[in-house]
Amino acid sequence: MPVGTQATVKGMTTEQLQSLSVEILLCNSYHMLLRPGPDIVAKLGGLHGFMKWERPILTDSGGYQVFSLSKFRKVSEDGVTFQSHLDGTSYALTPESSMDLQVALGADIIMPLDDCLAYPATPEMAAVSMRRSMDWAGRCSIRFRERAPSGQELFGIVQGSVYSDLRQESAERLIEIGFPGYAVGGLAVGEPNAVMYEVLEQVEPHLPDDKPRYLMGVGTPEDLVECVARGVDMFDCVMPTRHARNGWLFTRDGHIVIKHAEYKEDERPIDETCRCPVCTKHSRAYLRHLFMAGEILSSVLNTIHNLYFYLDTMNRIRQFIEFRRFDELLAKVRNKQLRRT
Amino acid sequence: MPVGTQATVKGMTTEQLQSLSVEILLCNSYHMLLRPGPDIVAKLGGLHGFMKWERPILTDSGGYQVFSLSKFRKVSEDGVTFQSHLDGTSYALTPESSMDLQVALGADIIMPLDDCLAYPATPEMAAVSMRRSMDWAGRCSIRFRERAPSGQELFGIVQGSVYSDLRQESAERLIEIGFPGYAVGGLAVGEPNAVMYEVLEQVEPHLPDDKPRYLMGVGTPEDLVECVARGVDMFDCVMPTRHARNGWLFTRDGHIVIKHAEYKEDERPIDETCRCPVCTKHSRAYLRHLFMAGEILSSVLNTIHNLYFYLDTMNRIRQFIEFRRFDELLAKVRNKQLRRT
Repeated sequence: MPVGTQATVKGMTTEQLQSLSVEILLCNSYHMLLRPGPDIVAKLGGLHGFMKWERPILTDSGGYQVFSLSKFRKVSEDGVTFQSHLDGTSYALTPESSMDLQVALGADIIMPLDDCLAYPATPEMAAVSMRRSMDWAGRCSIRFRERAPSGQELFGIVQGSVYSDLRQESAERLIEIGFPGYAVGGLAVGEPNAVMYEVLEQVEPHLPDDKPRYLMGVGTPEDLVECVARGVDMFDCVMPTRHARNGWLFTRDGHIVIKHAEYKEDERPIDETCRCPVCTKHSRAYLRHLFMAGEILSSVLNTIHNLYFYLDTMNRIRQFIEFRRFDELLAKVRNKQLRRT
Repeated sequence: MPVGTQATVKGMTTEQLQSLSVEILLCNSYHMLLRPGPDIVAKLGGLHGFMKWERPILTDSGGYQVFSLSKFRKVSEDGVTFQSHLDGTSYALTPESSMDLQVALGADIIMPLDDCLAYPATPEMAAVSMRRSMDWAGRCSIRFRERAPSGQELFGIVQGSVYSDLRQESAERLIEIGFPGYAVGGLAVGEPNAVMYEVLEQVEPHLPDDKPRYLMGVGTPEDLVECVARGVDMFDCVMPTRHARNGWLFTRDGHIVIKHAEYKEDERPIDETCRCPVCTKHSRAYLRHLFMAGEILSSVLNTIHNLYFYLDTMNRIRQFIEFRRFDELLAKVRNKQLRRT
């Protein structure tokens, strides 16, 4: 899922997203709460009507942005109060108001409010935080069933930091409540990749086989393959779009940093094997020029390429799985990683 | 002609420009000289190959940007020396090197180096400057015939500030040299609109009927109609694109400033009569949100609308001329102007 933070994937028209075959977007409730406000979005037909995006949308609860962006955050059993990073206005989010917010935004998949924990955390801190999140998940589920229109779905989020017993307890409590999909939260928050993979391996057997699993906020193209190998079905990440704007472009042989002088006269595309609208047309030299000149088109073209690369990576994963040759893809990725390290 | 200052119309892919039926772009030689440099552009196939824009391109000489942007400008009979506004590097432009630069850039229509004069100027200053520009036009023409490949065309530029005798002398000297098209320069530099119109009326009878006339750096939608009424065929201006990025959007009833709070919940398009890809899809409320949030897509969508509006204005002018009803269009524009003042 490309990330459309403020009701737009930065620099992309909805037509461009459609022609890249983007199937679903993530939008951030936190940003919509602050600006333009849920009432305006709801009046304009929810996020779908507001953005004019007809395909599915997932919204997060806002909890993570409160944790990472806001000022003067205060968490209690009831919920979280915080000040906007934009103008200091005070807001409160409870499990219930988070559901109401996401119902107003009208996303197809919505997420429960959870308590976000910094990494590293002691087992005691992680237990308190996880149990609070599970209590909140229960309250979210109740409010959701009261208020949400049919068609919307609420996922659960497994927490518990890096502690396998806590992760197991969290998964079991969520399954008891019952959700149509399960996210793994609290990863990609600074822990080493090996730790993230290990947590996924520990959580995996505790999740139902017949429900989608969504790893929040991950990751590199290699992460996608490694995490699919550990049972993950869905991802969201700002990496392809944010890196694009910083001139970091993905290729099958790693990445290139387009500002480097070596690309000054380079007539080749970003990736000679790529069939995206940018690689079939533009040279590295032109893309470098646009980046150095600070042109808007630099962000636009780089974003098209990186999104294409990520979606293509997911397509390749699906194909390799379909042909029962996923192990080959995994071996290929690990081999390349080894060669590069 | 939309302006593609640094080898890109800010925020627009070439596909978007094509689907707007943009027929010709203007690019700035000055910017290409400084970054990425003409050698790189030439190596990548000229501006057409560099930008991947197959339709016509016009380049200016760089003289106006030297006048308006550069530091420590020094003009002599031979040409102009100046320091880059980017990093202070020294450059020289002569009539000859300006031709070589534009030949390297490979534009379809190129412009002679001229001496740019601040407004207002005394008749004496204007005469000296105009005669220097005419000498340079002669030198440009000689160099152009020696160096330019077939297919490229060099226009002349009429100068002479607001003085009709100087404008006449300038037009006559250019016609003596002989050009396939004639630009009117030194207007839209701060003089009142009425003065600009008057100068055009005075110049008009001195220009050949069978050659295109190009008014440089103009203007508002109303200016386009008023100047066509005075014989102008071609325009370039940053107004539609620059105003778009500042949230100033053109409509048939004047303009709207999209940041205004009155558009916060406005479900209507920018202009209800407009058939552009933005007006047929997006609300003012969404466009206001994108602008307030500082989103790249704000610049992109606003630019699409404003370019469509300008090109549509030119299309309407052509249609009214074709049906021999141009006077009606002119009366309509003047009526609206009166109503608004």
